[in-house]
Amino acid sequence: MKNLGYYNGRFAPLDELTVPFNDRVHFFGDGVYEATLARNYKIYALDEHLDRLYRSAAMVDIHIKETKAEMAEILSDLVKKLDTGNQLVYWQVTRGTQARNHTYPEDMVGNLWVVLKPAEIKNIYEPVSAITAPDTRFLHCNIKTLNLLPAVLYAQDAERKGVYETILYREGGRVTECSHSNVHIITKDGVFKTAPTDNLILPGIARAHLIKACSELGIEVDETPFSIEEMMDAAEVLISSSTAPIRFCDKIDGKSVGGSAPEIIEKLQKWVMDDYLAATAE
Amino acid sequence: MKNLGYYNGRFAPLDELTVPFNDRVHFFGDGVYEATLARNYKIYALDEHLDRLYRSAAMVDIHIKETKAEMAEILSDLVKKLDTGNQLVYWQVTRGTQARNHTYPEDMVGNLWVVLKPAEIKNIYEPVSAITAPDTRFLHCNIKTLNLLPAVLYAQDAERKGVYETILYREGGRVTECSHSNVHIITKDGVFKTAPTDNLILPGIARAHLIKACSELGIEVDETPFSIEEMMDAAEVLISSSTAPIRFCDKIDGKSVGGSAPEIIEKLQKWVMDDYLAATAE
Repeated sequence: MKNLGYYNGRFAPLDELTVPFNDRVHFFGDGVYEATLARNYKIYALDEHLDRLYRSAAMVDIHIKETKAEMAEILSDLVKKLDTGNQLVYWQVTRGTQARNHTYPEDMVGNLWVVLKPAEIKNIYEPVSAITAPDTRFLHCNIKTLNLLPAVLYAQDAERKGVYETILYREGGRVTECSHSNVHIITKDGVFKTAPTDNLILPGIARAHLIKACSELGIEVDETPFSIEEMMDAAEVLISSSTAPIRFCDKIDGKSVGGSAPEIIEKLQKWVMDDYLAATAE
Repeated sequence: MKNLGYYNGRFAPLDELTVPFNDRVHFFGDGVYEATLARNYKIYALDEHLDRLYRSAAMVDIHIKETKAEMAEILSDLVKKLDTGNQLVYWQVTRGTQARNHTYPEDMVGNLWVVLKPAEIKNIYEPVSAITAPDTRFLHCNIKTLNLLPAVLYAQDAERKGVYETILYREGGRVTECSHSNVHIITKDGVFKTAPTDNLILPGIARAHLIKACSELGIEVDETPFSIEEMMDAAEVLISSSTAPIRFCDKIDGKSVGGSAPEIIEKLQKWVMDDYLAATAE
């Protein structure tokens, strides 16, 4: 198959599959999700993504009927159905099926959805540019929910302006994250500084890998908030997500940024790619 | 028919209809909606709801293919298909259909969904109780979007605690609104006080009707923020939504509230019901 959509056991090409009108996601964005890459039919960092999905679900009281092992098996079986082993693996659990009503039965069980399409890891060696915008999202950004309309608008705005991402900041100037990535800086002292995992950012798995890389490479990590001013003045600005685990930023809002610690970027790029390639080797 | 689901021209009973897997609402809650009552097959305040829907859509760059007149005709035709003329009329426009991707083509046109089910106006003469909770929603509460997961959790919490609504307040104590209703107070001076229509509350149509009622009844209106303390100490606390256009509250967080201006409540109840019954008379 060229691509695949899956819904509670049924699967078909994405544009042929249909789902019940009464799935609660239709009326409330009522679900949680994950996304990662597969290479050679091997799903990268699957256990970490499953752990986060079940944590997200628990935080919004969504009940997943599959065990983690069952879900891993479903996903690992589905990826084999695509013509290519290099894929975006996206999946979500919605709260359940019910005629539209805010409240739900306490024993409701979730619906499992999967999207598979061909994808390659993004070119991490090219610099990217970004814009900034006030962060107007809800205060549950630590939960990977399907309430993503602000993220859609931030991403669209970035695309219109020909940049890679929109970097968000809260009132007061604290940088949080981007429309679908985390953001970090390398300070002039060579410290990897990244926002703490409170309710204002998603605890990114690529972010966790970068912290692990720093630890192995002897780069100091500081998980405290940083401001727009600190970012604009940093040695480097890094953006990470599961499909682009490390990107470095050379321009924000049209102004040059970073470029002062290329040796740290190179070390991190090498660690990230080595880890990815080893975990997904044939 | 006992109930009806509609999607872009197709309709069927709610639990039989299916929709395309790739509707963007599935991945981003990417849509806007409206809900009102019909009585005697007449949709109450339809023009006001249509105006708000098109405003919501414009604010999040969703393109509705139908004109307001065409949408009014679709809805008015659909309500005739139900066995009863007394219905909940719910409809939404989602951004469009596309394999999951944050960004969207600029020329994408929306999908129209409708839900019809039997419903009566709620009994507005019985008091209700409520709880309070911090308002952790996004800063676009003026737009009636399908990013409603926090509202779901607030409503579920109210149901679990056996109360009618969860009244929300922002940091600092300003009361905003409820999980799916606006909230207002009658001050001890007999003033109808309601939060201003900024980005923290939905500009409710029932709210607008109450303001109109006050104007006709000679009750002063003050559209400025009020605090939890003011609310707990007010002469009356009122909650309004399109399915329950005026409810009065006698208990919040287990403490007695209101009860000091029953004559104002009675006047408003009468105005609201007269307006509703006249507009939907056979």
